[in-house]
Amino acid sequence: MEKVILDGKLVAKKITDTLKERVTSLKSKGITPCLATILVGDDPSSETYVKMKGNACERIGIQSLRIHLPKETETKKLLETIEKLNLDPSIHGILLQHPVPSHIDERKAFEAIDIKKDVDGVTSTGYGQTAFGFGTYPSCTPAAIMEIIKHYNIHIDGKHAVVIGRSPILGKPVSALLLNENATVTTCHSHTTNLPEIVKQADIVVAAVGKPNFIQGDWVKKGAVILDAGYNKGNIGDVDYEACYENASAITPVPGGVGPVTISMLLKHTVDAAEKSMNIPSL
Amino acid sequence: MEKVILDGKLVAKKITDTLKERVTSLKSKGITPCLATILVGDDPSSETYVKMKGNACERIGIQSLRIHLPKETETKKLLETIEKLNLDPSIHGILLQHPVPSHIDERKAFEAIDIKKDVDGVTSTGYGQTAFGFGTYPSCTPAAIMEIIKHYNIHIDGKHAVVIGRSPILGKPVSALLLNENATVTTCHSHTTNLPEIVKQADIVVAAVGKPNFIQGDWVKKGAVILDAGYNKGNIGDVDYEACYENASAITPVPGGVGPVTISMLLKHTVDAAEKSMNIPSL
Repeated sequence: MEKVILDGKLVAKKITDTLKERVTSLKSKGITPCLATILVGDDPSSETYVKMKGNACERIGIQSLRIHLPKETETKKLLETIEKLNLDPSIHGILLQHPVPSHIDERKAFEAIDIKKDVDGVTSTGYGQTAFGFGTYPSCTPAAIMEIIKHYNIHIDGKHAVVIGRSPILGKPVSALLLNENATVTTCHSHTTNLPEIVKQADIVVAAVGKPNFIQGDWVKKGAVILDAGYNKGNIGDVDYEACYENASAITPVPGGVGPVTISMLLKHTVDAAEKSMNIPSL
Repeated sequence: MEKVILDGKLVAKKITDTLKERVTSLKSKGITPCLATILVGDDPSSETYVKMKGNACERIGIQSLRIHLPKETETKKLLETIEKLNLDPSIHGILLQHPVPSHIDERKAFEAIDIKKDVDGVTSTGYGQTAFGFGTYPSCTPAAIMEIIKHYNIHIDGKHAVVIGRSPILGKPVSALLLNENATVTTCHSHTTNLPEIVKQADIVVAAVGKPNFIQGDWVKKGAVILDAGYNKGNIGDVDYEACYENASAITPVPGGVGPVTISMLLKHTVDAAEKSMNIPSL
């Protein structure tokens, strides 16, 4: 059986190469795409992520406005910051780095992001539109998973996809996107009682659980496609890669799988939003 | 094994009895809850449904404003009608009877309904909020299914629920609601290849496919709970009732199962909306 390592760096490069041209074209029309990133507090991982995203923007000519708020920031102040960015026509996308400090109402903050600038796909409206098949910016990791599947011509229609995880930015939207592509979709989570048995049925496995090496090799059906959206400390995915590799027909490594494509989807959405902003009569 | 016929009329009566008191209390404060129903064209089934809903409103003291537009109505005109109802403070809920004639952009019309008046749960925003666990008015049939489950103390947490159907007002939201109650949820549809095998695993089966007697008796696991949201010509459900009854531990009949509770959820949402309208500072 042919075994395919799903190379996220390759997919990401293909996407960003096209984006560079689109950014150049936008700039020639006087528009510089701009992503505002908001970091609250000083969690080192979050700082790293925001920095990575900002740098990725700049590498392809997207401007990055980095807003860093102190960890004691109140929800009200964060909402005001978001509202200001919503109203600023030079900002095309807004990313609020998750998680925010626990005293902040994170959901309220996410919901405050203008749907037109929700390039990270965190609002419930964005999710609803995605699930109904007309979303503009699906959450970036789910969008990345779909891009990888598309790039490698993996057949989804009629396949059984098992998603492990049900977070609003990962498990739920990836389930919705797979369903829209005519997969039969099972969404599993911490209350699922017979997880190995369910995963064993999957033609496509999406691991989005946030536990290192959680998906075991003997859970995986021969020939299954495995997409590991996990990214745990020490560059470890949710899938026990070595063990799952044996049965899989295709598998994403960690790092170098879903991660790089996620960032490129964020960039793509930001460029999309900048292009759309040119056609909005009110601007 | 004890066998339970899930009596929708009983559940509906319990709900409407409470609503009557709430309507009386609202009226004593000068508010008459009002549901606007919009029917476009003259499909006889749709006419019957809208009439039933209007009559159900009136039986418990909710005012029913019945708008009947000719079948050649354009999308634009329908949107204007909805917008007028959105702005009218005496209207608390808006129901656009599905389906509208095919030349109308039905999704656009649904999306035009103000989220505060979307008591039928048809907007993508309402769906997204429901899926994220903070929806105000989930779509009525899914809400009815959850009410029946609750009334009969059916255990959901950790159970495997299989939903057959993925429509925006039924299969998708009922999958979301079951997931939020910690079921492991599989959503199936016309592209599902091994449906009997998947249904066989279900502790809870939700039939939402719109095909008479579609779910066969030998698909059903011994002890499964079966909720039939189908309502086909001749009062026939999606479940082959006689055959499925044998294996089921609990089952909804058609008629008299999910249907009556669906209407009572519409009434409940309308009363909820009327109560909420009193607390809105802008009114």
